[in-house]
Amino acid sequence: MRTGRTMAGPEIERLVQLLGRLPGLGYRSARKAALALLKRRDELLVPLAAAMNAAADKLLECSVCGNIDTIDPCTVCQDPRRDRSLIVVVEDISDLWALERAGVVNAVYHVLGGHLSPLDGIGPERLNIGRLIERAHHPEVKEVLLALNATVEGQSTAHYLTEQLEGTAVSVSRLAQGVPLGGELDYLDEGTLAAAIKARHRI
Amino acid sequence: MRTGRTMAGPEIERLVQLLGRLPGLGYRSARKAALALLKRRDELLVPLAAAMNAAADKLLECSVCGNIDTIDPCTVCQDPRRDRSLIVVVEDISDLWALERAGVVNAVYHVLGGHLSPLDGIGPERLNIGRLIERAHHPEVKEVLLALNATVEGQSTAHYLTEQLEGTAVSVSRLAQGVPLGGELDYLDEGTLAAAIKARHRI
Repeated sequence: MRTGRTMAGPEIERLVQLLGRLPGLGYRSARKAALALLKRRDELLVPLAAAMNAAADKLLECSVCGNIDTIDPCTVCQDPRRDRSLIVVVEDISDLWALERAGVVNAVYHVLGGHLSPLDGIGPERLNIGRLIERAHHPEVKEVLLALNATVEGQSTAHYLTEQLEGTAVSVSRLAQGVPLGGELDYLDEGTLAAAIKARHRI
Repeated sequence: MRTGRTMAGPEIERLVQLLGRLPGLGYRSARKAALALLKRRDELLVPLAAAMNAAADKLLECSVCGNIDTIDPCTVCQDPRRDRSLIVVVEDISDLWALERAGVVNAVYHVLGGHLSPLDGIGPERLNIGRLIERAHHPEVKEVLLALNATVEGQSTAHYLTEQLEGTAVSVSRLAQGVPLGGELDYLDEGTLAAAIKARHRI
């Protein structure tokens, strides 16, 4: 048995290696992806490389909310139809994208860039919190919705932010907890069931 | 609820859309991958775009075996340490890569580019078969190993190739069938169990 040998040119090896650093792609699926790209050079490989270069050239972080976009302020912050009295606070840009995809928010956002995690050395100064407090002081802002993950870290971050926002005139809210749509009780954890019962309401 | 709106610049939307065309990445994971790229512009996005362009510029199909590489003949065909008396026939380049990764083949390959599939209109003329027969006539070739998938299509392709190779001096072989390493009998299909029993051998 021989191992460690090169089976393709260094350009292809490097492509596989870099693709393997994308989330959700292990080494095996990175090879599959590389092969799909190589087999479809003109339809996929070349256009994707061009799209990446275009995105890299135009990439900006929104100075208002922390979103990533090709304009600053970002598309969402510049949208004139948005309700600016409500700021939806999320941990990560992926959460902003998820809410936008669902089309359930017609307000503006604020991206923290993570959650408090003392064990990992992530304190308030590492998150985009100062700018949130600043924004919350603006008279047009009435409500700050803490749309953070229902995890220990997310909830302790929400607790910290609630304290920090106490000096402002905004009302602070959080997402409802309960049974997810289509959720089967049998498969839900005790915490979710307890929250759903506690927050029950009349039909 | 509002849907269908643009939540980021067109360059980012296009990046997500093209990433979603890679095997193994659905729309959701394509967004995750795009976000990872955008967040790591200099460490990942720019190098990956460059690697793609480099691969696209240098991409060649090996005129001997049908492999994809940046040189022609490919790295494997040019390797002077390979045993040229054995040609390992595979359906797809991914199979060649799998065998190379395992390091269990020290011979040369021949990539068919698929399998016979009359229902999909894929006849022998659509596969890289003519060149295989040509290669098999070369006096240095002693054996052709049909390393095709253990599927109906793979096996009927193997059957067809065996017939085509009858006029040559080469011996035609195929992979052994049986219990995979670490395989639990309880989880194996009847066909595999039958093959393993039929091909049993003395310890």
